[in-house]
Amino acid sequence: MFRKLATLDEAQEIISQHLPCKPLGTEDTKLLKAPNRVLAEDITAKLNIPPFDRSTVDGYAVKAEDTFGAEESKPVKLRVCGMADAGELPKTVVGSGTVVRIVTGAPIPDGADAVVMLEDTELKGDELLIYDSLVEGTNIMKAGSDIRKGETVLKKGTVLGSGEIGVLAAIGLSKVKVHAIPRVAVLSTGAEVAKPGGKLRPGKVYDTNAYSLSAAVVESGGEPIYLGVFPDRASEIQKALRRALASADLVITSGGVSVGPKDLLPEVLDSLGKPGVVLCGIAIKPGKPATMALIGEKMVFSLPGHPTSALLVFHLLVHPVIQKMAGRKLGAPLKVKAFAAARMFPAKGRRTFIMVRLRQDTLKRLLAEPVPTGLSGAITTLARADGFIEIAENQQFLDEGEEVTVRLLKSRAS
Amino acid sequence: MFRKLATLDEAQEIISQHLPCKPLGTEDTKLLKAPNRVLAEDITAKLNIPPFDRSTVDGYAVKAEDTFGAEESKPVKLRVCGMADAGELPKTVVGSGTVVRIVTGAPIPDGADAVVMLEDTELKGDELLIYDSLVEGTNIMKAGSDIRKGETVLKKGTVLGSGEIGVLAAIGLSKVKVHAIPRVAVLSTGAEVAKPGGKLRPGKVYDTNAYSLSAAVVESGGEPIYLGVFPDRASEIQKALRRALASADLVITSGGVSVGPKDLLPEVLDSLGKPGVVLCGIAIKPGKPATMALIGEKMVFSLPGHPTSALLVFHLLVHPVIQKMAGRKLGAPLKVKAFAAARMFPAKGRRTFIMVRLRQDTLKRLLAEPVPTGLSGAITTLARADGFIEIAENQQFLDEGEEVTVRLLKSRAS
Repeated sequence: MFRKLATLDEAQEIISQHLPCKPLGTEDTKLLKAPNRVLAEDITAKLNIPPFDRSTVDGYAVKAEDTFGAEESKPVKLRVCGMADAGELPKTVVGSGTVVRIVTGAPIPDGADAVVMLEDTELKGDELLIYDSLVEGTNIMKAGSDIRKGETVLKKGTVLGSGEIGVLAAIGLSKVKVHAIPRVAVLSTGAEVAKPGGKLRPGKVYDTNAYSLSAAVVESGGEPIYLGVFPDRASEIQKALRRALASADLVITSGGVSVGPKDLLPEVLDSLGKPGVVLCGIAIKPGKPATMALIGEKMVFSLPGHPTSALLVFHLLVHPVIQKMAGRKLGAPLKVKAFAAARMFPAKGRRTFIMVRLRQDTLKRLLAEPVPTGLSGAITTLARADGFIEIAENQQFLDEGEEVTVRLLKSRAS
Repeated sequence: MFRKLATLDEAQEIISQHLPCKPLGTEDTKLLKAPNRVLAEDITAKLNIPPFDRSTVDGYAVKAEDTFGAEESKPVKLRVCGMADAGELPKTVVGSGTVVRIVTGAPIPDGADAVVMLEDTELKGDELLIYDSLVEGTNIMKAGSDIRKGETVLKKGTVLGSGEIGVLAAIGLSKVKVHAIPRVAVLSTGAEVAKPGGKLRPGKVYDTNAYSLSAAVVESGGEPIYLGVFPDRASEIQKALRRALASADLVITSGGVSVGPKDLLPEVLDSLGKPGVVLCGIAIKPGKPATMALIGEKMVFSLPGHPTSALLVFHLLVHPVIQKMAGRKLGAPLKVKAFAAARMFPAKGRRTFIMVRLRQDTLKRLLAEPVPTGLSGAITTLARADGFIEIAENQQFLDEGEEVTVRLLKSRAS
């Protein structure tokens, strides 16, 4: 167990040591329900795409050699002897001196090796004048030229966007094996915390964290299970956490982890099973009281009660865990470069994160403006910040005008 | 009606002329279901946050003046006469010479105007030694200092992320009025097109577009209604489109819009109601046959059958319409700068879009590499392209090494 403050790097190392090496289970999903799910298997095409030689234009299927020498002023004359429709096997064979009318997407009839476009022909009775000389293969999409039977078209771990789902449909799949979505139980603690929706009794405040963290779980690709608010009593929190561990893959609590007499979480966590608390406080600001326990193989993150701190620690530590459990590759977080709009100082000896709002100055430079997260901005900061910047433990300060990297909390683009 | 090819700018102008000026209706949603929904009303706080003066630390509530002069070597001595718990109204008043034990988050008892931290005190029986001199307001978060009653905390049109949902919870809302999600009917046409999942009969190909476009609708913030595949027969397509118009806010078809004998869509669209086809072909490559009709106030987009072309036209024209209908502000699309990995040419007289894949070269420069979209890459391009670049109608070519702006089809970050 780690009973002293860990550095952020140590904390991340401890968490990744305890991460299950494999994502959660897999499940089949219908292709129409698959957007944004993560593929749990390599996908191999069981057929050629296209499955047959297809015409890419409306026109006439011919033997290319029958058109040799044709030009604007000297057309060749061939006999039309049938029609090749889309969706049907051609009934006619193209022999020397004959052509078959064909539409876009229709299979090429036997005997033909090119298609002349409608625009380059003229029909006179059942005779066709062709004004263009074709080479073999003209306007034909060969069987397997897009995807070859046996080819691996998509790899395990791919996040399914519109393009990938199109590929899966094209090779005939109507369902696909994907990684299960991590179920994340979220609960708040505190005698003063009340559920939104009801009337607020004196001395109480509405729960913020269970809601903002549930939404953050959705944004990370998990499914939140909202368990509600529990008073600061060991027995009730213990019962709630047992329920959470039974129903979820991961548990997030907030509140009850600093140093007061009612900050019971670390103790309760240790009582739930082995190994118990593995991380108890991190040398970051804000977020210092963040605690992590392991009960069997399930992780419990106990985040600070301050809404902005809770969400920051979620982004730093919990988001990557949910991503990993969901089978997602850990992509680089979205970042932008900006210029510090003010001088900013780190907390002594702690990696410091400062919430910032982005705005353009008159020269169209992007400025990162600190948003107060302290006493008077606990909640409004949540909605005002576009992202956060990081100041190293040993850095004296970040100067006004200095270039900084802002990690975005959300993408502003649509 | 517009029966000649429109330029892309004209097409966008025509579409925005016909866009309904208001988003669709609104609906109430539970806060836990609200992530990524769009707020349909300004939100005003009906209470102060915090609702009362709160202690931000564990310690003792005091009259600041009683601590004046206290220091490490010369503590002041005060009498403890009660306890202020979180979640309850304090029962004790702090008089001169007395303090009340208080925990983080508890309301400040009457008479007190500062809180001394536990660490700066020492308890001897019921007497407290205070080693620090406090000013008024120390460690107190004043009522309304985070959000003031009557303040507008979030504006109509805001997309609800974790931070915004936290703010709504904090002011006691458990549900919220959001814009309805646009329902978008999606269907494919073509005698040769078959639904994925079944066995493929000779001459048929599996439907790609209805699936990739349905997924693109989800990515744009709409709800797809998959209607299936319809053969190239006017009566059946007409029936399907009537059904689509009755059940959806917007309709997307693909296939059946180029120049062959079975390309019936424009004719069928005109038969469905007034004004009918308002846009018939666009001078872009790919995507030239794209058609748009207006039946009453509902839009029908008929996209080309080629999977990559269909998805490109969706991104250029349909995506912004869905966003607008959903009450979303039209954010700038996600773009990155890169260097052209090869010389690329536009189609004569048409705005040309080239699908590209991004990769880093050995100098860590981001390169945009064209992905073939032609005959042999109709479907695989969908999964290979990261985005597309644009070449103007009058531009001769884009040179290798030239800086280009890549519009991303999806965000690669997580």
